[in-house]
This record gives sequence, C-alpha cells and structure tokens, in this order.
Amino acid sequence: MTHEEATRIVQAMGEKARHGADALAGSTDGARAGAIRAMAGAIRRHGPALLAANDRDLTNLPADYSPAFRDRLTMTPERLEGVAAGLERIADLPDPVGRVLEAWKQPNGLSFKRVSAPIGVVGMIYESRPNVGPEAAALCLRAGNAVLLRGGSDSHHTARAFHEAMVEGLKEAGLSADMVQVMPTTDRALVGALLQASGLVDLIIPRGGKKLVERVLQEARVPVLAHAEGLCHTYVHKDADHDMARSVLLNAKMRRPGICGATETLLIDEAIAPALLPLLVADLEKAGCTFKADEKARDLVPTLPAAREGDFATEWLGPVLSVRVVGGLDEALDHIHRYGSGHTEAIITENERAAEKFINGTNSAVVMVNASTQFCDGGEFGFGAEIGIATGKIHARGPVGAEQLTCYRYEVRGSGQVRG
Amino acid sequence: MTHEEATRIVQAMGEKARHGADALAGSTDGARAGAIRAMAGAIRRHGPALLAANDRDLTNLPADYSPAFRDRLTMTPERLEGVAAGLERIADLPDPVGRVLEAWKQPNGLSFKRVSAPIGVVGMIYESRPNVGPEAAALCLRAGNAVLLRGGSDSHHTARAFHEAMVEGLKEAGLSADMVQVMPTTDRALVGALLQASGLVDLIIPRGGKKLVERVLQEARVPVLAHAEGLCHTYVHKDADHDMARSVLLNAKMRRPGICGATETLLIDEAIAPALLPLLVADLEKAGCTFKADEKARDLVPTLPAAREGDFATEWLGPVLSVRVVGGLDEALDHIHRYGSGHTEAIITENERAAEKFINGTNSAVVMVNASTQFCDGGEFGFGAEIGIATGKIHARGPVGAEQLTCYRYEVRGSGQVRG
Repeated sequence: MTHEEATRIVQAMGEKARHGADALAGSTDGARAGAIRAMAGAIRRHGPALLAANDRDLTNLPADYSPAFRDRLTMTPERLEGVAAGLERIADLPDPVGRVLEAWKQPNGLSFKRVSAPIGVVGMIYESRPNVGPEAAALCLRAGNAVLLRGGSDSHHTARAFHEAMVEGLKEAGLSADMVQVMPTTDRALVGALLQASGLVDLIIPRGGKKLVERVLQEARVPVLAHAEGLCHTYVHKDADHDMARSVLLNAKMRRPGICGATETLLIDEAIAPALLPLLVADLEKAGCTFKADEKARDLVPTLPAAREGDFATEWLGPVLSVRVVGGLDEALDHIHRYGSGHTEAIITENERAAEKFINGTNSAVVMVNASTQFCDGGEFGFGAEIGIATGKIHARGPVGAEQLTCYRYEVRGSGQVRG
Repeated sequence: MTHEEATRIVQAMGEKARHGADALAGSTDGARAGAIRAMAGAIRRHGPALLAANDRDLTNLPADYSPAFRDRLTMTPERLEGVAAGLERIADLPDPVGRVLEAWKQPNGLSFKRVSAPIGVVGMIYESRPNVGPEAAALCLRAGNAVLLRGGSDSHHTARAFHEAMVEGLKEAGLSADMVQVMPTTDRALVGALLQASGLVDLIIPRGGKKLVERVLQEARVPVLAHAEGLCHTYVHKDADHDMARSVLLNAKMRRPGICGATETLLIDEAIAPALLPLLVADLEKAGCTFKADEKARDLVPTLPAAREGDFATEWLGPVLSVRVVGGLDEALDHIHRYGSGHTEAIITENERAAEKFINGTNSAVVMVNASTQFCDGGEFGFGAEIGIATGKIHARGPVGAEQLTCYRYEVRGSGQVRG
C-alpha cells in the first residue's frame, strides 16, 4: 500500500469518526453506557465466530513463536466471558463526561464552569493480546470518544471478529457504527498514516513493547499518551522497617517481573544495607532472582555479580535486579533523576519527613510510600480499567482510565455582558 | 548555524533547565513567588538598560515595518512598570503546585492522592511583544517549571536585557539562573532544534501569528499547547433578546477585531433574522465593519456583499464579519463543526434548553451563553495572567494560566501492602 493510499483510507476513517464523535457529544450517559453493555452482549452471542477467527490467527502463527506469545493470543470461552464482563464493568463506571471540575463567578456577573468533555477521536495501536481492542473501545466510548483500532497483525482475524460484534452492539443501542473502527488491513503504511493524522485524530495511545512505543513517539504528529518503559526504583531508606522492606521488595520485583510496574533497581541506604541487604538478597534469590550490583553492595554481599555500565539504565522485564548502595535520600533522588523513566518509584521508610522529601523530589507519575511498585495499575487505583499507563508530562500521568480519556471545556454564562 | 550545532546548544540548555527544574521540584511556594518578585524588582532597577536595548531593536527595525508593529515592539518607562507589576500579580497568585486534586482510599488500606505538580521544562516561542518573555517566564516559574525563551528576532536585544534582569532576580532569591534561559542568537536552526528536543523539553508554547503556530505544530516532536486561529462564531438564536444580541455582537466583533477571541462569523436564526439582521448590520456598519453574507442574508439586507467560497473558513482578524442565516440550532452546530477552529463560540438566547443543547453540541474550548466571545482571556477568566490560549483536545483548553502549566502525580501511601 502506498503512503497516499494509506492516508486516504485513514482520512476517510477519521472523518467518519469525527462525525460520530460530534454526534456523540450530545448523547446521554445512558446511551453511552447502554452501547457498551450491548457490545458485551454481542460479544457473548458472537462467541463461536470469535473463537473460529481466533483459531485462524493461531493456525497462521509461525511455529517458532514462543508459547507465552501463543498463550497471550489465545481466546477461550472463559476469556471471552472475561472480556464481556470487563466491558460491563466499564459501563458501570460513573460517567466521566459532564463533571463540573470547577465553578466560579467573576465580579461582572459572568459565571464560569470547567466541565469534563470528550477528547474526540482516539487512535489505539496495540500488540498481541486481542482483548485490548474491545476494552480500549469501551473505555473510549465511556468517555464519549470515537476510536480507531490497530491491533497486532498476528491477531487481525480476532480483532475483526471483535469489531463485528462491537458494531452490532453499537447499532443495537442506536449509536453510529463509526464510533469504533478497525484498520482494514495490517499494512504498516496505515499505522504511519494514523500517526500523521493531525487534525483528524486527537490522541494516539500505543500499548505494547518499547520498540512499538518508541516508533509511535518518534513518528507521531498527533499527541501521544504512553510509556516506553517502566524503569521503577524501590529505595529502602535508613529508617525502613526491615520486615516491611523484605516483603514489599520481594513483591515489587518478583510478583510479576515482566510488567512495567515491576521494580528494576533497588537503592538501599548505606546505613541500613549491612544488616538488611543480605536478607533482601536471600529472599529474592530463593524466588529465582539474579542481580547486578555496584561495588558497595558487593562489599556487603560478595556473591553478587557486578553491575556493568548500562545496567542501571536497563529495564530487565524479568527476574533480574540492579542493586546500588546510596549515601542517603539525595543520592537516591539523583540516581532516579538520571536513570528513571518517570513511571513509578517507591520509598520504604518509617520517617514521614523522608517520605515527603522523596515524594516532592521525584517527578515520576506515581510515588509509593511503603507499598509495592506493582500497584501501579488502573484496577488497583480503583479506575475499573485502564487503557494504558502514561509517563509523559502533560494531560494524564500514571494509569489512564475513562476519566483520563476526557479533557474539559469552559461554559461561561452571562446576561448580555460585553468586554470593556 | 548547522542543525548539529543548534542541537548541541539546545541540548546543553535543556539539560541545565532539567536540573534546575528537578531542584525546583523540592522548593517552597515562598521561594518561587519570592523569585518572581525579585525578578520584578530587578526589571525596575534595570530600566535604563532595558530601554537602551529596546532602542537598539527599534533602530535596527527596517523602515517599511508598520507603525503598529513598531508600537508593539516599543518599551516605555510606563510599559516597563506594567511588566514589573504584572510579574508581582503572578507572584500573588495562589500556589498552583501541590494542590490535592483528588484523594481516596482503597479497601486494602492504600491511600491515594492526585496532586498537582510542575510539568518540567517549557519552551516558549513568541513574536514581537517583548513583554511576553518575562510574563511567560514568571508564569512557568509560578508553576515550578523551567523555561527556554525564544523571542522574535526583531526584539532580541530587549529580550536579552529582560533576561539579564530576570537572572539577577533569580540569583537574589537563591534560585538557579538556569530556570529562565534565552536562546543565544535568533538563528532559526535553534527553533528547529527546540522543536525536536523530545525528552529535554516537555511542552512547547508558541504565541504569535498563524504561520508561526502552524510551523510549530508541523515540526514539533514535543507536545504543543497553542491555537493556530480563533475562528469564533456568535449564533443568535430565535429566542434571543434583540437588544442583548445587538450589544453583545457589536462588542464580540468590533471591540478589538484583531484578537483571537473576536467573532468572525454571525450565524442568525431565520426566524429572527428578518426583524433583527438589519439592526445588527446597521450597528456594525456604523462602527466600521464590512460583511461577507450568504444569499439568505442578502435577501434580507440586499446591500450586503456576497460571501465567496472560503469566506466562512477565513479568520478576518479585522473589521469584517461573515454572515449566514441558518434554519435553527442544528444547522448552526453543523456550520461550527465544519468551519470552527475550536476556540470560542457564543449563543445569544433566552431559551435555557437551547443554550444547553448548544453547549453540549459544540466541542470548542470555550462556549459563551449571552456574552461576548471577546471574554476568552485569562484575565477575564480570573486567572491573573495567561501564557496563551489552547484549542487542542488534551491537557488544557482555553486560556492557559499558571494552573494549566502544571500536571499531576499520584502519591500512594501504604503500610507495607503487597499486590496479590
């Protein structure tokens, strides 16, 4: 497909989505929630067709793909029911549109309201897990947005089958089918065109590996909410409770080492390290973790492998932990400023002043005090669902739920005021 | 200057700004406000040097530049005092950093706070008016951000003299001089490098003509808050109060026809147009306005010049008004969706249901009911000052004040919770 063809296709999709979003702007909460429930119902009804489409994707999958990848791609009746139930939970969320965020009056009698409003058209680019498509579509719709979906090429048949079900749900609820569209093919030129669709698409959300996200951030001419990596730190302060430090760090690293909120680096205060570091290492080793340690840490636990240049800048996404002994809180903050990715940092301490200083000294999206970095998740935050996690500096940071898929507008009411 | 040289210069500036911003993240409200007051004091003390630098810019100005342009560039003792007093007003604004935007607890005992936080490093690109530099710097600083300033090449000496004063103020207040930096030269390659400085600069704010803003939107690899144009509509509904419609429209168009919040198009309901349109036209004509009218309007007022293809898509920025008679509210909304720039729209009506429908049916940043579109201004909104007006769909829309120059982070406090 040429760039021009791709641009024409995305332009036509974007214009339809814009019209759909314009129409939806005037819709009620009930209509939006009802459409999501209808989508869930249609996904249940379409079960056999969805599983057949998924079979086709699995059959086409090259044999050398990892079992883990194949598993992520696989739909089962239980997983389909999980998707449908997830959509119903999103429908049950409080309406994120039309909330009065602030209201005030000026001396001239004008009254001002800042009111949450849909963003418009969202472009969602995601990889293997096919359930991301319907979940992202439901979250966008909950917030009054239209969405253009571009899933992984390995799950294209599944994505199209989900789309058919969602369109049926939208129509049943009386909403335009243009609110949820999928790319007609998996041609990469279509991704390029989507990333360039400034004016037609208001926001791009990429969800997948670092390579995908970095390509999107590099090429996009449209605002992007994303995180390229989660290089999260847990800092064990000198006034940490030893037992708490042990259980929190073990969870932060090893609960699921492959998620973006997993801790990649332990920073430990030199005052507490002699007593605590050997215990932390033993706990983690027992759970299957390996290490990359600086010299001071190796002085305390000589069996630790030495960290090399670049290790502290590496998101392991696996059972590996970088370890550094620091002189105190300032050195910990300097390290985080230098190597962090702005995702999630944690401090373990019983000292409230140290906790405050750590919170104010980092500029990451999420700062935890005495809790596992793995809590960085929309569900754990109480958002019901998340479309992704953002580490940029504007609009929304941390888990992105339905509320974060809105912006706002000002409503100004007067009685004939003119400006002097 | 080559692209590589420019990139090196901007990179060095951005890194210093990032360090300054990191250090400022832990600063108090008093330190930030005090630094802005010290900047105001230094601007007063530097009066003679500032006026001399401004003289140099005015002397260098080509003779064929318009008197209006020369006037915008000119600094006088009174205008300097205005800049200093403006900075003091910004220092007096409530602290936009550290506000608890939301707080809640989860069943597992984790307590969550969403807290406003600085964005980081802002790049400000502006044209002729040299007072924009110190005002933008003060607003950024108020919100805890570092700023890189790039003013118009015609006012470069003035900009550098302002910068010297600001640096003196920063140092006096004990803050890093790196918080406010100006480009060393007006080489355009530096603008290009600034727009590409993803990772070093968190937000670009261009303020100037459509050409400048469109170039920035086109080239930037960094998020941008801006408006390229303000194609604002005033819709006179059939249930409008005639006298109110007359005074509000006259103000919306003619108070200052050149500002972005000026009304460019009148949409008038066909039910009220026969009685009202001739009066509106007479009022505006008396004030020096000319017209581009559709056929239905010309049927009612035959002296109106005919609108041509493209007139309804034109931001006149002068005493010209496009006029269209519409069949009702839906047609008005369709017109706004098609031609609007997402800036400010107004409806004049006594009918509350119509007002509601208009508000919910537009997706512009600001919607006015029974008030002049010229109220779209940070001062009129009560923000104290504005760095610009945004018409994008994310982060902030409408007037951008100190509060809009923050984002947020999450503070999560636990007592050793681990994720299950």
